Amino acid sequence: MKDCIVVGAGVSGLVTARELVRRGHAVTVLEAQDRVGGRTLSVSFDGRRLDIGGQWIGPRQKHIAELVRELGLGTFPQHHAGSKLLARGEDTFRYGGVFALPRVSPWAMLDLFVARRRLHRGLARLDPRRPWASPDARAWDAITLEAWMNENVRTKDARFLLSNIARAVLAAEPDEVSFLFFLDFLRRGGTLDETAGIAGGAQETRIIEGMQTVSERMASALPEPVHLGEPVRAIRQRDRAVEVVTDRETYAGRFVAISVPPALAARIDYSVPLGRERQRLMDQLPMGSVIKFLVQYETPFWRQAGLSGEAASDRGTILMTMDATSSDGGVAALVAFSLGTSGRHWAKRTADERKRAVLAELAHLFGPKAARPVRFEEKVWVDDPWSGGCYCAVPGPGALTAFGDALRATCGRIHWAGCETAFQWPGVDGAVESGKRAAQEVHARLAIERSHTTEVRA
Amino acid sequence: MKDCIVVGAGVSGLVTARELVRRGHAVTVLEAQDRVGGRTLSVSFDGRRLDIGGQWIGPRQKHIAELVRELGLGTFPQHHAGSKLLARGEDTFRYGGVFALPRVSPWAMLDLFVARRRLHRGLARLDPRRPWASPDARAWDAITLEAWMNENVRTKDARFLLSNIARAVLAAEPDEVSFLFFLDFLRRGGTLDETAGIAGGAQETRIIEGMQTVSERMASALPEPVHLGEPVRAIRQRDRAVEVVTDRETYAGRFVAISVPPALAARIDYSVPLGRERQRLMDQLPMGSVIKFLVQYETPFWRQAGLSGEAASDRGTILMTMDATSSDGGVAALVAFSLGTSGRHWAKRTADERKRAVLAELAHLFGPKAARPVRFEEKVWVDDPWSGGCYCAVPGPGALTAFGDALRATCGRIHWAGCETAFQWPGVDGAVESGKRAAQEVHARLAIERSHTTEVRA
Repeated sequence: MKDCIVVGAGVSGLVTARELVRRGHAVTVLEAQDRVGGRTLSVSFDGRRLDIGGQWIGPRQKHIAELVRELGLGTFPQHHAGSKLLARGEDTFRYGGVFALPRVSPWAMLDLFVARRRLHRGLARLDPRRPWASPDARAWDAITLEAWMNENVRTKDARFLLSNIARAVLAAEPDEVSFLFFLDFLRRGGTLDETAGIAGGAQETRIIEGMQTVSERMASALPEPVHLGEPVRAIRQRDRAVEVVTDRETYAGRFVAISVPPALAARIDYSVPLGRERQRLMDQLPMGSVIKFLVQYETPFWRQAGLSGEAASDRGTILMTMDATSSDGGVAALVAFSLGTSGRHWAKRTADERKRAVLAELAHLFGPKAARPVRFEEKVWVDDPWSGGCYCAVPGPGALTAFGDALRATCGRIHWAGCETAFQWPGVDGAVESGKRAAQEVHARLAIERSHTTEVRA
Repeated sequence: MKDCIVVGAGVSGLVTARELVRRGHAVTVLEAQDRVGGRTLSVSFDGRRLDIGGQWIGPRQKHIAELVRELGLGTFPQHHAGSKLLARGEDTFRYGGVFALPRVSPWAMLDLFVARRRLHRGLARLDPRRPWASPDARAWDAITLEAWMNENVRTKDARFLLSNIARAVLAAEPDEVSFLFFLDFLRRGGTLDETAGIAGGAQETRIIEGMQTVSERMASALPEPVHLGEPVRAIRQRDRAVEVVTDRETYAGRFVAISVPPALAARIDYSVPLGRERQRLMDQLPMGSVIKFLVQYETPFWRQAGLSGEAASDRGTILMTMDATSSDGGVAALVAFSLGTSGRHWAKRTADERKRAVLAELAHLFGPKAARPVRFEEKVWVDDPWSGGCYCAVPGPGALTAFGDALRATCGRIHWAGCETAFQWPGVDGAVESGKRAAQEVHARLAIERSHTTEVRA
């Protein structure tokens, strides 16, 4: 009988296990896949590992920064020296410098800045623990981000820019997500600027060894190896224990920490019903839609042309790109994202069709050299059975106000981790925060039950 | 008798000499100081040379980029990952991310963007060869930048931001400079954004070995060593030659290329008067006012705090700072600038007073660690006798429309180089451009005179 069974060996699950082991508890970690890391995944290119999953750390993300230091990993800044590109239809605009804003009219700028101020004023009024209980929560959760923009953003250009930012940070379309969720997403990231930006923002820092190494190092430091290739099928809650059933074995523990996305947690068979709120919550938290591409080249030719590698495009294949070159410069690469509708569209095509379309679009943005890569890798997170999509859950209208309280509420002996349950920073930092919280909860209950047991024995 | 005597061994003079030597001409270079480099100056810190003079290369600055490659020097991006600081009075604001704009009202933003669009529309109407002959040149040269802002910028915040940008890029006050000059200055740099920015802007790239190395390598490659410590006192134009007089010797050449700032060229005694226009031009091109500080620390502690090292302050000591850490990270440093009025104010104080004030301001911006440097260096360019100030000449109203044509007009056998005479990019790139042009002019005249001599002999 273990003190805790952890379901899922992504960042949040491994942090839960790590923190419990630190406090002297016995832990088993069960993982469906044949690898750890969950929504982080690093691919080896000529000996350097580049990230084709979650990859960035922001300046105020203390949890992941501390963990990276503890694990002895190195960090380096996301490259962004140089001009950026914005492709709209057949036109491509190049911009950079002190404002680094694409050339739109001052009226569109005013419009964007008024909208930004409204967003920042709105998020300042959110309850940081229970945003769904904030004064305006019902009104904000009743509409989509698209509906809010239709009311609050007048110019086409400002709507275009704001929609692009939303797609980039959520991996979802403005007409899919609750406005309350978007507002709370920005609150969790500080501001619109910090959420979406590189310098001073959430995309500022990369990990030299690749983000998946964080999970690998945590896993290898556990006294009991992670059980790979064992999807959890059922969880049976008993009076003072819980049984976690996989195809291979049944594991007994005092508590369970489930650290997979809510939509995947819904597929487990629970012997004791979790309750209507939790069940509906899991049914109503669809995941974002991402395909991530890593494209290696002989040289970072865009840098020589004065380009940073950042581009945004409305042309329907890839929505944005960034420089993905390794920290030592030895592997030159771009990373590109298909997001939201276009992510789902291209997920249905063949790998060959995607490669052709992505290289054509990169050539449109960066010139003919971009059509001749050394190597092309993709990760279709949209179709990934063990994440259900990326980056995170993207609730539509109504879900949070109705079921938000169920996000972190324990269900008997089941505790919940995962970046969806974080108070701040959806993403890797939130995953670490949530794992620490779940471990703290389980530790507290173990302490109570032990003192109780001791009393009974005495 | 040399083919050309070059006066001044800054970047423009050495490029003039280098290009003439390449074409097979005999050249003597005379330099007042005991070093080459002019307004570039690199100081050794633990074996790395950091720049306390001109130091940056922008993405479209082809002339200096090509020269740097020819000389086998390395480049690296100006560090700017992290948040920026803006100090106004006692308040310090931290900002960063996708917009990276300090928190001002949307109305100030609109105001700034309308002003920016007006500036960009204005500069698009400038004649790139003779801006003073553009349709609106007289009206624009009749007012200062301050006067233009009073008419065109409504909000205090937008005036503050635009004034700060102007001070930072000109090293002069908005009420000192001609609006035509400011507009042309932006035109030479592309846009306001490109002129003032880091990523995609003119402050994007640094030289690993320090910018002064550019001049040192050019000097050491010349067949005749640069004559150091020989200020030119007089230039006597003869019928088919010219004599250049220093305290030590008189040098005879067919032509002279003067590559010192116009205000310094005015101090030379010319046997043949240069003409009223040239004389007045030299009298009316005052130099900008800069004190540059390099402050070394044990560690780049601001980076650990999520700060880029960029700060702007209206508190009257230093107007801006940036990270100045060496490319290998071995020397952690900040660079700070006193500019315009405050540059002149602090130039009158003692070095100790300046050091105390600058460290107090750095501590105000970056915290108490900033008050404890390992080493503190300053260069009071304001008082520098052999540049007369930095970065460049900053004409007041009236000068360019009256005497602009005299900037590059040859005076008998005298040709003019120096960044003030460049068509694009005032600064190091303009210096290289102007040196190439001056060399081309002298080469063409040498070719004509030689063919003439050959004919006469035949």
